[in-house]
This record gives sequence, structure tokens and C-alpha cells, in this order.
Amino acid sequence: MARKKKDNQTDIRSLIATRRDGGVHSREDLDLLCAAAADRSAPDYQLAAWLMAAYLKPLSEAETADFTLAMADSGQRLDLTGVPKPWVDKHSTGGVGDKTTLVLAPLLAACGLSVVKMSGRGLGITGGTLDKLLAIPGMTTEIEPQAMIDQAKKIGIVVAGQTADLAPADKTLYALRDVTETVSSLPLIVGSILSKKIAGGAETVVLDVKCGCGSFNPTRQHAETLADALVRVGKKAGLNVYAAITDMEQPLGRAIGNALEVQEAIEVLTKPEDQLSSTTKRFRELVRYFAALTLRVSGLSPSAGDALDRVEATLSSGRALRKAQEWVEAQGATVQLSEEGWLVKAPIINSVNSTFAGCVSKVDARVLGEIALELGAGRKTKESEIDLAVGLEVHVKIGDFVVEGQPLVTVHARNDEGYQYAHDRVGFAVSVVSTPVPPRPILVRPA
Amino acid sequence: MARKKKDNQTDIRSLIATRRDGGVHSREDLDLLCAAAADRSAPDYQLAAWLMAAYLKPLSEAETADFTLAMADSGQRLDLTGVPKPWVDKHSTGGVGDKTTLVLAPLLAACGLSVVKMSGRGLGITGGTLDKLLAIPGMTTEIEPQAMIDQAKKIGIVVAGQTADLAPADKTLYALRDVTETVSSLPLIVGSILSKKIAGGAETVVLDVKCGCGSFNPTRQHAETLADALVRVGKKAGLNVYAAITDMEQPLGRAIGNALEVQEAIEVLTKPEDQLSSTTKRFRELVRYFAALTLRVSGLSPSAGDALDRVEATLSSGRALRKAQEWVEAQGATVQLSEEGWLVKAPIINSVNSTFAGCVSKVDARVLGEIALELGAGRKTKESEIDLAVGLEVHVKIGDFVVEGQPLVTVHARNDEGYQYAHDRVGFAVSVVSTPVPPRPILVRPA
Repeated sequence: MARKKKDNQTDIRSLIATRRDGGVHSREDLDLLCAAAADRSAPDYQLAAWLMAAYLKPLSEAETADFTLAMADSGQRLDLTGVPKPWVDKHSTGGVGDKTTLVLAPLLAACGLSVVKMSGRGLGITGGTLDKLLAIPGMTTEIEPQAMIDQAKKIGIVVAGQTADLAPADKTLYALRDVTETVSSLPLIVGSILSKKIAGGAETVVLDVKCGCGSFNPTRQHAETLADALVRVGKKAGLNVYAAITDMEQPLGRAIGNALEVQEAIEVLTKPEDQLSSTTKRFRELVRYFAALTLRVSGLSPSAGDALDRVEATLSSGRALRKAQEWVEAQGATVQLSEEGWLVKAPIINSVNSTFAGCVSKVDARVLGEIALELGAGRKTKESEIDLAVGLEVHVKIGDFVVEGQPLVTVHARNDEGYQYAHDRVGFAVSVVSTPVPPRPILVRPA
Repeated sequence: MARKKKDNQTDIRSLIATRRDGGVHSREDLDLLCAAAADRSAPDYQLAAWLMAAYLKPLSEAETADFTLAMADSGQRLDLTGVPKPWVDKHSTGGVGDKTTLVLAPLLAACGLSVVKMSGRGLGITGGTLDKLLAIPGMTTEIEPQAMIDQAKKIGIVVAGQTADLAPADKTLYALRDVTETVSSLPLIVGSILSKKIAGGAETVVLDVKCGCGSFNPTRQHAETLADALVRVGKKAGLNVYAAITDMEQPLGRAIGNALEVQEAIEVLTKPEDQLSSTTKRFRELVRYFAALTLRVSGLSPSAGDALDRVEATLSSGRALRKAQEWVEAQGATVQLSEEGWLVKAPIINSVNSTFAGCVSKVDARVLGEIALELGAGRKTKESEIDLAVGLEVHVKIGDFVVEGQPLVTVHARNDEGYQYAHDRVGFAVSVVSTPVPPRPILVRPA
């Protein structure tokens, strides 16, 4: 005679049905879902059903903001109380050769902002900041929450792996999305990105939304939709958030591969702009843009001009480099960034040269990313080991003029097989034509 | 340097993506899906994602036919070679008081058809034939496939539980649908029903699609859509299939509850129509309709009139009863169906009477089904134990005239609490009004 009791299972099932029918989830609904995803009290098959329903009957913006907060609150938020404000974080949607954090984070910290950033590992053609940092001998990225806060208080910068309890609902749902073909849902992407930023404690967040063949946003329209959704939902969720769209048709900068990218980042921190290669200059431009943007939107610079001046002064005075040195030492590094010779090197280093003179019309970020992946610079699966030394250096960008025999790409390979593989395929990635081609601006749409 | 290899996982993911995007599954796709569901090589979360995608992007009729065959072929089909043709099966979409198989199966077998039927257990307000059969002392429904075939060869009738290897993909998917809010998808329902009929070996299948508050089809439109889909898909899948829609606004016949329904079925087999109660007559009408339909569509009767004559003759001559006796004895029964006194009886048997004279305007099948469920006649969860003795006898149907004090429902309860519960609620189920109300035909739409 027992009467029916509304329990957790009933709630999860009713949530699935609501989503399936395109209904509206309340914040309480989403808190329940995210709590059940975080503590695994909801079986994966029910979460998978909800995810597919959410893919086909997308969350509204208001729901996405609630979903974001529910995921952020599914674990412990990092409490930055005591860390000097402004608290900023930066996120890139991921691309090929994207080592922006390695320069931008110490640069901003040297300008007086507190940068507390949790980063991920790379997967596929998308590199991960954590992997790149591990190319610095002694460096650790496994830092307990309290130690992160202490380091941020002391030197204004910390970049670490995600803490176990950071948005655990997102961890569960992200892993499921990956295997249920529900990754490319805008509200789910937005919630995943922003929930981790919010749980990480940031108040001001700048987003680098990549656009082009080397990113998850093949078209400008995709990128604009994502950028706009991130900003609107982020604001609804209480963040001071800005998103710029940047080019990922060609790789970012010169280096693709972990140690190579660290080397390029150090060059930007140590050398004046005119001593940098053509492709590294393009990377520096992106760093400078985001640094100035962050100074401006976090209230530290009154104007765009002032912000740019501060950025240039902080780079040229060596203060950014010194902050970077302080940072990596605080995380265990045993090397001087400004010294040479400590980065691992691949045994085979050889260039692929242009077979005729002309103008570069294509430097395909996806194909180059895939070559670097095959060389061992990235992970094909989550379990893959990566080879820190291997990768590519890309010496040309679209619009550059080249002469016959000029190096297009330098391959850093572990063995002859890898070199041959890369050599044979670079020709598909880089095209040289006989007519001039306009360069592609790095900034597709400012924030 | 290993090249990507297309594996089972890749296939399942691509199937999910195809369904998600409303694409078209080939028979090979569906074979792969059903094989992976049957051997559990696909994780539940991927099947759940596919199910939700299939709910929101429904399979076409051609795909549903392929899906049906893929599920039927996911295990061992029962091979009826050697059993005299025609091979027939009957299925009801489920309702309250539906004991049709108990009469129809022996009646058809007595007419010369071979009835090989696998049945299920009840859940919720929907009773299951297997449970009812277990009210016959000694009767077993666990029969190995070869023994089923042997019994069908010998006496032309066998009703058993589903064999372990009958459409195992459906078992997996059905269990998942139940917990992922994907039950009420027409193509999935159709595939589930028909795949088991095909795997059970039948060539001619008659379907009783229930319509009304005591069924899964609340409206006639629901029922028509389902009936039409079952017939069209069934034909595509190679079945000789017919579906009639019958009324489930009020319970079928007099009895709701396992032993009570067996008793009512025996009455129909033993007594002439004019000795039956008003509600049992209505049940007999349904049995007669489906029996005649089956005789006609399986080619044993040249006309509807001939079919009806054969049905009546088989009932009145006692041949149907003798076949029923043969049947239950073959499955272990130790009783004579025509003798009285061997059915379990509830300790408390008491009627609820009409408090005034008038015409019956409502006999709510759902409410009465829920009362019987609370009394213990059905299962609230798959694990529940059922009480064979308890239930309800419904003495009136819509359109009947009653006098004050006339019994409306007799409650068969295990204890006073149960009786009181049922007594208090019968008033919500049965309404008597002062104006005449037309009776509801049992047959809503013939096949």
C-alpha cells in the first residue's frame, strides 16, 4: 500500500522527459542534474539520454547560464579572497600552435593582474598548455587548491592542472559527450567552457575563439555564434567576459610541438619584435591584442592606447620575462628561461624547402596539426604518451613571398620514418602560387 | 604512425551521429547496432544516446522494418519447421483485465491452427499472461525452445515465457528505453513488438491495439497511428499481419486479477453465452472477433460468416475447452479446468454497491487497474511479488442500468486495509447517472 515517493530517479527521468519535449529547466533542475553527474548517482545512460535530448532540443540562453552555474557549483569553487584583484583568466577554444598562455599569463601578471588559470592537456591536433609547460625541466602543474591560492597571492600567477573537484559535473558530462556524439552542441560547449572559468574563481575572462580549419569552428559564422553565446551566457552567469575571434586557418606562430612552442614563447618574452621571424611576429600580435584587451576590460588601463603602451613596455623592459621566470620557479622549474640549451631536441631536424618562387597561398593548420600529431607531438587518444621534442616549425604565412629553395617548414622528428612521413605531407599543407595573395589578419573580429 | 582503423566503436559513434542528424540507417547499420546491443559490446550510454536520437529523429518505416528484422535476428529465431501450418501468434498492446490469450489460444488451436506464443509478465496496471497462467496449479511457463516446438507439433499450442535468446537486442534496448524516457517512440514500439513475434516464428500475427485510459493509447488517433504502423512495418518485414483497435476505456470483461481472470476465461470456455455476466459477454465478443479474424486471414475460413460459425461451434462443442485442458496439462497443470474449487481465493470478498439507481456512465479502466495493483494483483516494479488471489470483479459496463444496492464491483482483498482502500476508491472509477448512456462497442476499428 506504500504510496509512490518522488525520488532522485524520478527527478532525473522527469528532467530527461522535459529536455526531450523541449521544455524549460529551472536552476533547481539543473542543480539536481549536475549534482547527480558529479557524484555519479545518475547512471551514465540517463545522462547520455539527457545529453542527446539537449543536443536536439538545445537549452535556451537563460538555461545555459543556469547550467553553467550548476556545473561550476557541482564541486568546490576556488576562493581567491586575499589574492589582489583583478582576477583574470583567459581561454582559447583550441588550435594548432597555440602557446598564448605561456606569454600572456606572465605578461598580464607583470602588469599587475592576478592570473589564476587551470589548463588542460592536449587531444588530437589541439595542443594543451599543461603539456607545453612540462617541457620546462622541473615544472609541475599538479598543485593543490590552497597552494594555488598561496602562489597567486605571492606572485600573481599560477597555471595548473584542473583540481579534482573543479566542476566535476562537467568532467562527467564532457567524457560522455565525447563518446555519444553530443560534443558539438553550442549550449553544452558554452556551459563546459564557462563553468570551469567560474569555478576557477575568475571575475574577468577573455576568450580567444579560434576560427578556421585548424579549430572546431570551420567558418566565421560558427565562431561568431560561439563567441556571442559565450559572452551573453557569461554575462548572465555574472562574468565580466569578452571574446575575440582569431584566425586558425594557418597555425598560430612558428612552432607546433611542445618544446618548440616553449622556445617560441621565450623568444617573444626576450627578443624585440624586429628580431622575430615572420610567423612568430603574428603570434606576438595576438598576445599583444589579448593583453591590451585584458588590461582595458579589467579596468587597469583607461584606453586602448594606454593598454598597448603598457604591454609593450612590460615586454621590452624584461618585466614579463622576469615574471615568467618567477612563475616557473614557483612551480619547480630548475632552468633559466633566458638561457639556451636546456630544451629537449629531436634527433632529426630537417627542413622542407620551396621548390619554386612565389607567394604563399595556404598554410593549412589542420594538415600541419595532423602531421605534428603523427610525429608524436600530440595525443591521438587520452591515454597516448606525447613526445615533447618533436614537431614542426612553420616559417611562412599566407601572403609571404618565397624564393626557390627557401625553407617552408622544419621538421623535428624522432626517427627517419617520422621525418619521411612529415616531409611527404608538408606539400599538401603549404601552397606557393605565382600571383600575390593578401595576408590573413590574425584578428578576425575584435572583442 | 599507425593509421586510423575503422572499428566497432567508430561504427557505433557514426550510427549515433547519423540518427542525431536525421540520416538514414542501412540494414547493415541496424544489424551492427542490434548485435552490439545483444552482446552488450556497445556501452549502455551509447545505446541510450542512440535511443534518444531515434526518439527525436524517428526511424522511417523502411528503417523500422529493417530495425525489426535486425532485432529479431540478434538472437536465435524459433524454427517451427515440422509444426503444422498456419503458424499464428496474437499480441495485445496491454490493458486492464486482458485475459484474451487464455481463451483465444486454445480456441484457435482447436480450430486447427498452431499457436506458438511467447508472453511476458505484467507491469503496472497491465497484467501479463504468464502471471495468470501461474494461477493454474502445476503450470509452468519456462519451456526450452525445443520443448516448445515439440509441444506445438503434438497439440498445436504452447504459451511460454520468452526464451533467453529471443531478440536479445530488444531486451537490452527495452530495458534502457524504460529508464531514459524513450518508451513512447512509435518506431521503437513497433520494432519491439514485431521483432519478438518474428523471432517467435509466427507467420500470421493478429494484433489487439488497445485504446483508452487503461492502455498506452489514450486517444483513438494514437491507437490508429500505432495500428497502422504495426501493419505497414510488419508487412515490410514479411509478416501476414492484422491489427484491430479495441476499447480500453473500461476493463476487458469482469475480472481484474490473476486467479479471477483464469476463472472468467474458463467460464467463456465452458458456458454458453447467455449464462455469462454482462461484462464477461463483452470479453467473449472480443475473443470471438479475434478468433474469426485469425481463421479468415490465415486462410482457414473462406468468409467472415464461416469463421464465426466455426468459432461458435468450437466453443459450444467443448472442443476449445478440451484443447485448453490438453494445453495446460502439457505444461504441467494438475487440475481439471472444468472442475471448481482449485483456484486460490482471497480471504476478504465483498462488494461495493450502487447507492442509487441509474445508468452506468463510467467504468474507468485506469483507476480500477490501479486499485487492483494496490491490492497486490500486479507489479509496481519488475521485482514486485504478485498476489494471485486478489483483484476486482466488475459487474457493470457503460450503458448498463443499475438499481440501488446493486453490486458494481466485488473486491477480493488480502486484508481489511486493502479492502478499505479499494472500497474507498471504486466510487471514483464507476459513475452512475440519471440519464441513459449509450454502451461502448468493444471493437473500435476492425482490422
